[in-house]
Amino acid sequence: MTSAPTLLVVSAHAGDFVWRAGGAIALAGLRGERAKVVCLSFGERGESARAWRAGRTLDEIKAMRREEAESAAATLGAEIEFMDAGDYPLVESSALVDRLVRVYREIQPTVVLTHPLADPYNGDHPAAARMALQARVLAQAAGYDAPGEPLGAPPVFFFEPHQPEQCDFKPEVLLDITEVFGAKRAAMECLRAQQHMWDYYTDLAKRRGVQLRRNAGPNLGLPHDTMAEAYMRPYPQVTDVLA
Amino acid sequence: MTSAPTLLVVSAHAGDFVWRAGGAIALAGLRGERAKVVCLSFGERGESARAWRAGRTLDEIKAMRREEAESAAATLGAEIEFMDAGDYPLVESSALVDRLVRVYREIQPTVVLTHPLADPYNGDHPAAARMALQARVLAQAAGYDAPGEPLGAPPVFFFEPHQPEQCDFKPEVLLDITEVFGAKRAAMECLRAQQHMWDYYTDLAKRRGVQLRRNAGPNLGLPHDTMAEAYMRPYPQVTDVLA
Amino acid sequence: MTSAPTLLVVSAHAGDFVWRAGGAIALAGLRGERAKVVCLSFGERGESARAWRAGRTLDEIKAMRREEAESAAATLGAEIEFMDAGDYPLVESSALVDRLVRVYREIQPTVVLTHPLADPYNGDHPAAARMALQARVLAQAAGYDAPGEPLGAPPVFFFEPHQPEQCDFKPEVLLDITEVFGAKRAAMECLRAQQHMWDYYTDLAKRRGVQLRRNAGPNLGLPHDTMAEAYMRPYPQVTDVLA
Amino acid sequence: MTSAPTLLVVSAHAGDFVWRAGGAIALAGLRGERAKVVCLSFGERGESARAWRAGRTLDEIKAMRREEAESAAATLGAEIEFMDAGDYPLVESSALVDRLVRVYREIQPTVVLTHPLADPYNGDHPAAARMALQARVLAQAAGYDAPGEPLGAPPVFFFEPHQPEQCDFKPEVLLDITEVFGAKRAAMECLRAQQHMWDYYTDLAKRRGVQLRRNAGPNLGLPHDTMAEAYMRPYPQVTDVLA
Amino acid sequence: MTSAPTLLVVSAHAGDFVWRAGGAIALAGLRGERAKVVCLSFGERGESARAWRAGRTLDEIKAMRREEAESAAATLGAEIEFMDAGDYPLVESSALVDRLVRVYREIQPTVVLTHPLADPYNGDHPAAARMALQARVLAQAAGYDAPGEPLGAPPVFFFEPHQPEQCDFKPEVLLDITEVFGAKRAAMECLRAQQHMWDYYTDLAKRRGVQLRRNAGPNLGLPHDTMAEAYMRPYPQVTDVLA
Amino acid sequence: MTSAPTLLVVSAHAGDFVWRAGGAIALAGLRGERAKVVCLSFGERGESARAWRAGRTLDEIKAMRREEAESAAATLGAEIEFMDAGDYPLVESSALVDRLVRVYREIQPTVVLTHPLADPYNGDHPAAARMALQARVLAQAAGYDAPGEPLGAPPVFFFEPHQPEQCDFKPEVLLDITEVFGAKRAAMECLRAQQHMWDYYTDLAKRRGVQLRRNAGPNLGLPHDTMAEAYMRPYPQVTDVLA
Repeated sequence: MTSAPTLLVVSAHAGDFVWRAGGAIALAGLRGERAKVVCLSFGERGESARAWRAGRTLDEIKAMRREEAESAAATLGAEIEFMDAGDYPLVESSALVDRLVRVYREIQPTVVLTHPLADPYNGDHPAAARMALQARVLAQAAGYDAPGEPLGAPPVFFFEPHQPEQCDFKPEVLLDITEVFGAKRAAMECLRAQQHMWDYYTDLAKRRGVQLRRNAGPNLGLPHDTMAEAYMRPYPQVTDVLA
Repeated sequence: MTSAPTLLVVSAHAGDFVWRAGGAIALAGLRGERAKVVCLSFGERGESARAWRAGRTLDEIKAMRREEAESAAATLGAEIEFMDAGDYPLVESSALVDRLVRVYREIQPTVVLTHPLADPYNGDHPAAARMALQARVLAQAAGYDAPGEPLGAPPVFFFEPHQPEQCDFKPEVLLDITEVFGAKRAAMECLRAQQHMWDYYTDLAKRRGVQLRRNAGPNLGLPHDTMAEAYMRPYPQVTDVLA
Repeated sequence: MTSAPTLLVVSAHAGDFVWRAGGAIALAGLRGERAKVVCLSFGERGESARAWRAGRTLDEIKAMRREEAESAAATLGAEIEFMDAGDYPLVESSALVDRLVRVYREIQPTVVLTHPLADPYNGDHPAAARMALQARVLAQAAGYDAPGEPLGAPPVFFFEPHQPEQCDFKPEVLLDITEVFGAKRAAMECLRAQQHMWDYYTDLAKRRGVQLRRNAGPNLGLPHDTMAEAYMRPYPQVTDVLA
Repeated sequence: MTSAPTLLVVSAHAGDFVWRAGGAIALAGLRGERAKVVCLSFGERGESARAWRAGRTLDEIKAMRREEAESAAATLGAEIEFMDAGDYPLVESSALVDRLVRVYREIQPTVVLTHPLADPYNGDHPAAARMALQARVLAQAAGYDAPGEPLGAPPVFFFEPHQPEQCDFKPEVLLDITEVFGAKRAAMECLRAQQHMWDYYTDLAKRRGVQLRRNAGPNLGLPHDTMAEAYMRPYPQVTDVLA
Repeated sequence: MTSAPTLLVVSAHAGDFVWRAGGAIALAGLRGERAKVVCLSFGERGESARAWRAGRTLDEIKAMRREEAESAAATLGAEIEFMDAGDYPLVESSALVDRLVRVYREIQPTVVLTHPLADPYNGDHPAAARMALQARVLAQAAGYDAPGEPLGAPPVFFFEPHQPEQCDFKPEVLLDITEVFGAKRAAMECLRAQQHMWDYYTDLAKRRGVQLRRNAGPNLGLPHDTMAEAYMRPYPQVTDVLA
Repeated sequence: MTSAPTLLVVSAHAGDFVWRAGGAIALAGLRGERAKVVCLSFGERGESARAWRAGRTLDEIKAMRREEAESAAATLGAEIEFMDAGDYPLVESSALVDRLVRVYREIQPTVVLTHPLADPYNGDHPAAARMALQARVLAQAAGYDAPGEPLGAPPVFFFEPHQPEQCDFKPEVLLDITEVFGAKRAAMECLRAQQHMWDYYTDLAKRRGVQLRRNAGPNLGLPHDTMAEAYMRPYPQVTDVLA
């Protein structure tokens, strides 16, 4: 029995999944697959400088970021859940990992996306990744006390951080998102406070698209405006054909 | 225009392609695709210790290894070509690289297999890999003076060396070869002088099979006797679905 | 004053020391040296899938694994102590580290074996290693408040994980265990529930044996059925002869 | 049949073996073992700045450095051979590698010392190391056409470069040379033109001695003036006891 | 508005800042800049073996080390603050990080010095470094609840550990401390119990000075007795001239 | 005696220096310093696909690229010299290295820029870098037979390759080129055949500018349209102030 394709995205803050994995999520939506985003925090302290400077309260900021993230998820065709575990710092705990185990057991993801394990500019990102990875391993154990069947071993992909080279991020998978880039851009525009990021991540998608074409070879006839997202694989790829 | 699937294997010596990539080659054959093996040397000096100790001449050894490799390639459903460039050491040269460029231009491979770039036990292996990679890049240039159309950018896979950890070899792709393992074993048995290797590489295929099942997850229902080969990717994977 | 040779093995779960270091332990026994195994947990949740599926209770599973591990330790000639700190996850704590410091201070090991520091398949293994290493450093400090004399600086060896390449494990020491392989096999067979592992680790010992012979050179006249275990050294070797 | 202990040192220039491996060579001498130094060049261009500034001719400089190196080797109890292959740059060639193969075949070393593989300050050092390693592998092949029996697989040690951290040099073996440090110092003083190096390498031996004591542990009762040399191992250690 | 140059040094124990960064601190003092040292602990358990063996109490040892560190800081022209968080182990906590955030916010450092992130001989050092780095990131966030203005992004430098190669320490910056070496030596001599370290770190400064001259080139006319300290940069250098 | 500031750029092909180091060159020009570009080849085969497809001859292509590169160098305020050593492949030779040594000896550069040492997409780039580095070391030796005074030890910077993460390129220095970006853009536009690159490298300069501002901190008041180039340092920085 093979599970139905299901995508789980574990994101430290409310915006991360949009900038870095919006294309992959939209592609899953386009294929009619279930996709679920889990935001461990709203990014209320670390990624809302403008709102703080404007004098908003903590609750206002959390509400605003929740609303924006819900809109973006809807635009991408994904469910979204907020764990409201606090940010800056996002503190690792067994309780939070256990909540993630329960998500894994419940939705039985066949693909998992999260942050890479290093980020000298934002410690919440690797903390989220460590918990996402630990929960995935625990959810596999028959003896772990949580509802649902033990998990299989869904492949994991790390999405691209803001300063990839400083985070030991090396693109190992280039995902063609040309077909859904419009949806990704629309989702980015749901995050109204971070307008400078819209162009930054549009430029990045172009740049990764150029590299995708370079690595695919000219024979494939890919269009000049190919857009792409980059990912790393912490586990080996399993396949029955080399391609 | 997309090229027909075509596999090119660049091997330093006459036996390498069998032990390390026999499964991938047989799978290509099973799918009815063209596969071509290029042996840069016969392994006449470095991998024929038994024959030398038995007093054979250089020409006898080369003839014997050619015959064995031809049988193995036929068993796997592949063409084979010998460049007879000498081994121990296999000396890198522009002329030999140029011969490889011409092969690339002629058969227009869509997948390339070769050795990894480090091997402290056998310098011929990385020398072959460097030439295979350099020729692939040169063959892409419209300005390189050789017959045929410029090459695209076929993905490259490094096959597994004899002492993987000492060669910085980390399995990045686990290829399921269960279906063709019989053919691989038959091809190995064509290399009559190296009987101890038959079991060694059968054990390795089992071990990589166990790891493939571990990484694929129990849900996939893979059989307990899954056999696998391990590969690395020097270039990023290009895809339109994360899986 | 030099301490009598004493081996300390710090193992996350009840079975680890058998598969991965059984040969080294048996060799110490053969030389008449003291060897002590500390199991931080029984592996009751993470490595007892079959028992859980058979409906056993937590206490039954712990008892079963304790008994098996005691038999295996006895077979290898080692003492064994269980800390019962829980697994999946094995949670790091100052209290558990302190218990380890007290073991170090009491038995004054001259050699320490534990897991390597990375294992993306099982977070308990690196957690055990970090605690084993931290306790070793703390035990060296005259100012650390625990009974006994400050520890010297016993060399540490990391034993081989299940998927070595994925754990950055590179064999740095190949230990000849041919003489005691029978005892290791007998100890493995004490772990009745994991029969598929008996052959897996027998094959691994053969494979490491082949590599040991390759690295030792043919002159040494080692037998074809040489069996070996692989280790890494996190600290430099101290010696008065290069060999 | 085990070979008699024999040490081979492959050195790019005439002085390298003294500063970096003088202790190991003197220890071999003290044990009554054969030790042979091969200097690929005299270091006549790259390491004789003072002589060039003093207006000496090339031949004078080569003669002076030969004489100094011969004195130093004699002081350490070693034979010495000069290949006079030129330095700055030391050019790699099949012919020079072949000369080294013949040395390996003739003296059948049981231990090999050479430079590490990276040195951004002096390209001759890695060139010498690459040739020393390649020749060692070629000498092992029954099919390599050179007099003498095929070589076994003697362990290799890389000695310490002048700026270790810039050369990816990490001490993996700390060799206690306290007993022979007097001889090493005397050999250093044979290199009359490089007086500032005498103290530099004496200080280094002290520093490595402090680290040796730190890694050996206080229990061993090593004296405060322990002197040491540091080495790396490119191949795994083969042993029958962990220590 | 640019902040006035201000140096912050985060040190695990009371002596670390002297041995490893005394030159940099004295240079700041010489330029008339503010410099502040924060000692997370006194090193009362892990670095006071002699006092423990002499039968001193914990309080006596802490008082003694405080006094020594205060003298050394005064000699270097720096302020000093003790957090008395305990050592061996120095336990990471949100509360301690928060105290550091408040220091960052208050003094607004323009340069930060701390330990590197790896040290297999002393876990307190990386723990201090992780907290220093985390606090620096948190202090930048407008939403982090602590007095003062959000921090900029002051460059960070890791100072040199006792066994650099074992700590992945590679000198990336060589700082000329010749002019203030007298002050550094005087500060070292304030640490009366560790007399053997005075010469050890004097020798190290000479050795780094030799390397500084080698990397600066002879043209610069640096004196033969140039003294230096080595540092690493975890973040890229920002500049408007390459030099 | 300190040399006058002089910049040497060693470039594999005629265009590389513009895309990757145009800003640094223009800054040198702005400061009134001498800057010299050495192009080892014209990039006539590997980087002129459009011209080959348009049916141009080899000589026409070389002439066209020479002219474009001369215009670009003039725009940046630099001298330019072509070694016409051929590309795809650029073959390393002692003769070519010797020509570079003579350039070093003649112009006595105080800063050197070249390619990084890895590029799996273009082997000419690392070949150029290896020769540039080797020549720099040889030029330092009093005994190397070439006119002029021995070189000092000018710092080297690697400029950014086209696919940085695949080339192990990690920005270690972010150079602010805002002031001269207009000149860089004008120089790029001299390379008329590669119009798609103009925007690609303008986007890259923006992206590196964002990162420069992030690493410099908001306090510095850098403008939002800061433009930057990224570099690596193969040798440690020498300085008398940490900043």
